[in-house]
Amino acid sequence: MGGVVVQNIERADPDVIKALGEAGVATVHEAQGRKGLLASYMRPIYSGVQLAASAVTISAPPGDNWMVHVAIEQVKEGDILVLAPTSPCEDGYFGDLLATSMQARGGVGLIIDAGVRDTRDLTQMNFPVWSKAIFAQGTVKETLGSVNVPVVCAGAYVNPGDIIVADDDGVCVVRREEAESVLEKARARMDAEEAKRQRLAAGELGLDIYNMRERLAEKGLKYV
Amino acid sequence: MGGVVVQNIERADPDVIKALGEAGVATVHEAQGRKGLLASYMRPIYSGVQLAASAVTISAPPGDNWMVHVAIEQVKEGDILVLAPTSPCEDGYFGDLLATSMQARGGVGLIIDAGVRDTRDLTQMNFPVWSKAIFAQGTVKETLGSVNVPVVCAGAYVNPGDIIVADDDGVCVVRREEAESVLEKARARMDAEEAKRQRLAAGELGLDIYNMRERLAEKGLKYV
Amino acid sequence: MGGVVVQNIERADPDVIKALGEAGVATVHEAQGRKGLLASYMRPIYSGVQLAASAVTISAPPGDNWMVHVAIEQVKEGDILVLAPTSPCEDGYFGDLLATSMQARGGVGLIIDAGVRDTRDLTQMNFPVWSKAIFAQGTVKETLGSVNVPVVCAGAYVNPGDIIVADDDGVCVVRREEAESVLEKARARMDAEEAKRQRLAAGELGLDIYNMRERLAEKGLKYV
Amino acid sequence: MGGVVVQNIERADPDVIKALGEAGVATVHEAQGRKGLLASYMRPIYSGVQLAASAVTISAPPGDNWMVHVAIEQVKEGDILVLAPTSPCEDGYFGDLLATSMQARGGVGLIIDAGVRDTRDLTQMNFPVWSKAIFAQGTVKETLGSVNVPVVCAGAYVNPGDIIVADDDGVCVVRREEAESVLEKARARMDAEEAKRQRLAAGELGLDIYNMRERLAEKGLKYV
Amino acid sequence: MGGVVVQNIERADPDVIKALGEAGVATVHEAQGRKGLLASYMRPIYSGVQLAASAVTISAPPGDNWMVHVAIEQVKEGDILVLAPTSPCEDGYFGDLLATSMQARGGVGLIIDAGVRDTRDLTQMNFPVWSKAIFAQGTVKETLGSVNVPVVCAGAYVNPGDIIVADDDGVCVVRREEAESVLEKARARMDAEEAKRQRLAAGELGLDIYNMRERLAEKGLKYV
Amino acid sequence: MGGVVVQNIERADPDVIKALGEAGVATVHEAQGRKGLLASYMRPIYSGVQLAASAVTISAPPGDNWMVHVAIEQVKEGDILVLAPTSPCEDGYFGDLLATSMQARGGVGLIIDAGVRDTRDLTQMNFPVWSKAIFAQGTVKETLGSVNVPVVCAGAYVNPGDIIVADDDGVCVVRREEAESVLEKARARMDAEEAKRQRLAAGELGLDIYNMRERLAEKGLKYV
Repeated sequence: MGGVVVQNIERADPDVIKALGEAGVATVHEAQGRKGLLASYMRPIYSGVQLAASAVTISAPPGDNWMVHVAIEQVKEGDILVLAPTSPCEDGYFGDLLATSMQARGGVGLIIDAGVRDTRDLTQMNFPVWSKAIFAQGTVKETLGSVNVPVVCAGAYVNPGDIIVADDDGVCVVRREEAESVLEKARARMDAEEAKRQRLAAGELGLDIYNMRERLAEKGLKYV
Repeated sequence: MGGVVVQNIERADPDVIKALGEAGVATVHEAQGRKGLLASYMRPIYSGVQLAASAVTISAPPGDNWMVHVAIEQVKEGDILVLAPTSPCEDGYFGDLLATSMQARGGVGLIIDAGVRDTRDLTQMNFPVWSKAIFAQGTVKETLGSVNVPVVCAGAYVNPGDIIVADDDGVCVVRREEAESVLEKARARMDAEEAKRQRLAAGELGLDIYNMRERLAEKGLKYV
Repeated sequence: MGGVVVQNIERADPDVIKALGEAGVATVHEAQGRKGLLASYMRPIYSGVQLAASAVTISAPPGDNWMVHVAIEQVKEGDILVLAPTSPCEDGYFGDLLATSMQARGGVGLIIDAGVRDTRDLTQMNFPVWSKAIFAQGTVKETLGSVNVPVVCAGAYVNPGDIIVADDDGVCVVRREEAESVLEKARARMDAEEAKRQRLAAGELGLDIYNMRERLAEKGLKYV
Repeated sequence: MGGVVVQNIERADPDVIKALGEAGVATVHEAQGRKGLLASYMRPIYSGVQLAASAVTISAPPGDNWMVHVAIEQVKEGDILVLAPTSPCEDGYFGDLLATSMQARGGVGLIIDAGVRDTRDLTQMNFPVWSKAIFAQGTVKETLGSVNVPVVCAGAYVNPGDIIVADDDGVCVVRREEAESVLEKARARMDAEEAKRQRLAAGELGLDIYNMRERLAEKGLKYV
Repeated sequence: MGGVVVQNIERADPDVIKALGEAGVATVHEAQGRKGLLASYMRPIYSGVQLAASAVTISAPPGDNWMVHVAIEQVKEGDILVLAPTSPCEDGYFGDLLATSMQARGGVGLIIDAGVRDTRDLTQMNFPVWSKAIFAQGTVKETLGSVNVPVVCAGAYVNPGDIIVADDDGVCVVRREEAESVLEKARARMDAEEAKRQRLAAGELGLDIYNMRERLAEKGLKYV
Repeated sequence: MGGVVVQNIERADPDVIKALGEAGVATVHEAQGRKGLLASYMRPIYSGVQLAASAVTISAPPGDNWMVHVAIEQVKEGDILVLAPTSPCEDGYFGDLLATSMQARGGVGLIIDAGVRDTRDLTQMNFPVWSKAIFAQGTVKETLGSVNVPVVCAGAYVNPGDIIVADDDGVCVVRREEAESVLEKARARMDAEEAKRQRLAAGELGLDIYNMRERLAEKGLKYV
């Protein structure tokens, strides 16, 4: 039932993290073999942000944000909070005061499989949040959870120190130990895409660029 | 089965209403003991509005907006319509013509546990709506409902004349007779928050500001 | 199980299509007898677009976007893709590369009862999409579907060549053969609405403009 | 934020309650003017039960079942618990031990806009529950709520002492003070239905029994 | 906006219909190329029924069951009603009186993309219903719809006279003109399945019966 | 993107597994510190089964059941399949033929975060399934997944060889290495519950048995 705070977690190389953020969710997801996406209901409270950061994870009871305060002490420059409630909940665990505290500690955002509030303030503060809900419902501070333990957040398994990539498409998690190899593949993918983009922009068809016609015919596709 | 229009309802003091609007949903919700929130699926059709207004309530059959016309006659300067269908419905009860009529009467917005349409026009008219859905589905005018009776809207009980507070976080209702005491508590809360915000911005931790460490230890929190 | 591409489909008159786009979803839906709306969960990835276009339809297996490539070859200037998966799916069938290809062919958008990705790029490219989800989940290219066959998309029956009208209110389909008569009724409706708008703006009530008072009284409405 | 237990509530006449139970949800709902239904997601954990009982209401925090213990002390012979969480929650607030306690006090069931567990035991004990979810998730006992205050449960407003009618169709609430008049109308309705049932069983059409043909023709119904 | 009743519809051969019912939903769906399924939320009100019947279709306004009365006059021995509301609705359009009328006319069931009530009575009457919801909410009789026009019901396109196959797995529609060829394929499929069932029951693996091992290896499957 | 089959997995002691099954979901969930529950939408296709079994896990693409065939070869006496699609899917991956094969191998059931079909046959075969949906939609065999790798199924992390406990309340997973200690705690819990059950049945209140009155008073509970 919780009650543990892991204080020293390993983080990936900041340059690798930054570069994964520049690649974005769709590319990173493909580069690591189409895994790691959080559920599509995780939406940004405002659009236009694209980032990557190290996860400080929180396992919290429904309607109880006590562990958020505990977690912020564990946040280092460039970290992002990842909160998973122990049962489904939409309550607003987080608002502008906690965001102020996060920014003071160098924290860059929040991923929460629950609710968030004070969204106008958060937007003005440039504090991005990807959440399941926007809901002003207040929470209590009565029951322990844990910080920096593995969690399942919106259907994805997240270890503390894993890299969170988030943008307007949603949220993806990259294992810390795979960060460099994923980045390498992401870069290769972006290079390949750029070449294809130019050919497609010039009017060539994917059917031809990817040599699909023969295989489609073999499968039995009929033009009428 | 409806059929009643209550013509004379009491409203709260306009200054109190205005001040509640400035406090916003999250603060007002907390100030009144964490009650009164409408469900989190009630979302604004455009962001950035924060207001409070007196509720003119509508209980309407599914897919029938006849009572909206009846209700608008009851609207006074500064009122907001609150529509609850008698069974779940997403139809677009309200569009730009009704908004034109509302604005001509001094009405300031709509809270609807159903659908709304003409959202681009409404945005251009600065007529805010918080709704369950955006849906162009038309409605009929065949069956009576009631105006200015108590309704359950998106899970919250709303009396005519209660104060609706709405912003990007959602919608909250305040009992008319509690408006002043809630405002007082909201102001106290905002003052207290400002002090905390400064301490948090300076890098102090909530753990220390709120003296949480001892109680966390008593509950058994372990740092590893 | 699919496997057919219909190459020559008829399209409506481009001027009629354009004019339907200017009328918008709510008006067109009403003008054609309140039919043709897609489900309210079909939302634009960015707001402010209002268009009409000829449907090139795609029936695709869940998680398989092979047929999108096949369909793009069938796209002509002013067409829009309409994709219906054969079972419920949120995967991201479509991203910026396919949008590049669409724009090179004169395609103007996508209606998809599933997911889309690269939404920031699509927004910057001014390539509008109305979708059920935003989700980066990749798809495979293994199983045939069909192109330009009738589909049920988000609850609406769409034939290839039907006209899709889409704006911030959602999406509506107009039968190709009914396009002109619908346009005529839409125009009549817009004219009538303009007159009413002015009366409503001047403070007249719908109750009076539409002569509702007598019928309300007959039904038993009571003012108290 | 709760913290109140109302100890003496008024209840309706047991004979009236029993008779409302025999009428069932659909009939009672119609008899009282089509109001009082809880949302359709409230389903019985096993089928075949039809009952009515006096409501002992509980307003409880999410994931905290402390108030259930407090409420059971207030239960009298023939009462039913009605639990509404203060924010959406699926946790299993109630299981076989609490049902044992309820039965020992004469309590006859539970209506809960959240989860229930030990459903096999509850079924064997003949302890009926209508709930939003079946979920084994445990709850804590940390935060106060209230007992016997008005609540909104699954979209319906319920006062302590109101009559709950529940069967395989769902759940309906009847105001205590309207119980007798509703029963009277329910009986009249059942008598009228019996006569119609016999005519329909004999092959007569509703079109003729209810004299619908003329009005349908007036509205413009066309047979082709 | 509705208003049409088509009186003479063609139906498939009763023997073919009966045989499709014996094949069941999963088999028929496969036999016709994996098409025709209604959404998975269409559930039977009681289990154990497996049938096929000719569709008498109803397009009805939300919360208005007038057209059900009109439709029953069009029902012939062995028909099933298929009701699609013109916008999403859960109201209880149908109960035991209408079922009595249906049975008196030879009607065998109801498929409804909305709600049903009196489910205990319907179960005792052996009148099967597949619905989106069980909800006692009453409906009005004010607005015209249509009978025996094509409808989209729970995501599937249904023509009057098409064959509905329904069982515990859900609901599938078969085009009237394809009924015989689908039946033939269904029978071939059942014969083939029986042979496979015996081999599987004897402990043979699908991997071997279907010769999958080579293709799996080609795709790169690795055993570790 | 999958493509791995782990052949040798460790399983817990069969006697421990059996005993966990007898304890049931709610008790096991509590005994292991309120963790391990799958989402509440995972429902049994028929009620009355209570079991525990070793998980053989499947990570499968949406709408593709090829890996089920691969997995069945890995099934040993007393195993249960646990299938997690790589993106949300309701398709019917599994029916009576696969169940026949499972039973021939000694497999005892299926946990699937997707759909199942042939539910009547499965019920008659006494082959229990807990699923997200019942849906006849067929699947293809085109894309690799993996067998016996860790998966997130309905929100819970499941390793191959972990113990699945399932009954009418839903599904819970127990780590293989924690099985014995969880069983021990479950037994202690059941013993303690039995004593409490007798006291509650005799009319004692939980308020007294658990000594709640003083703490409630401290928190400020008021009786009025």
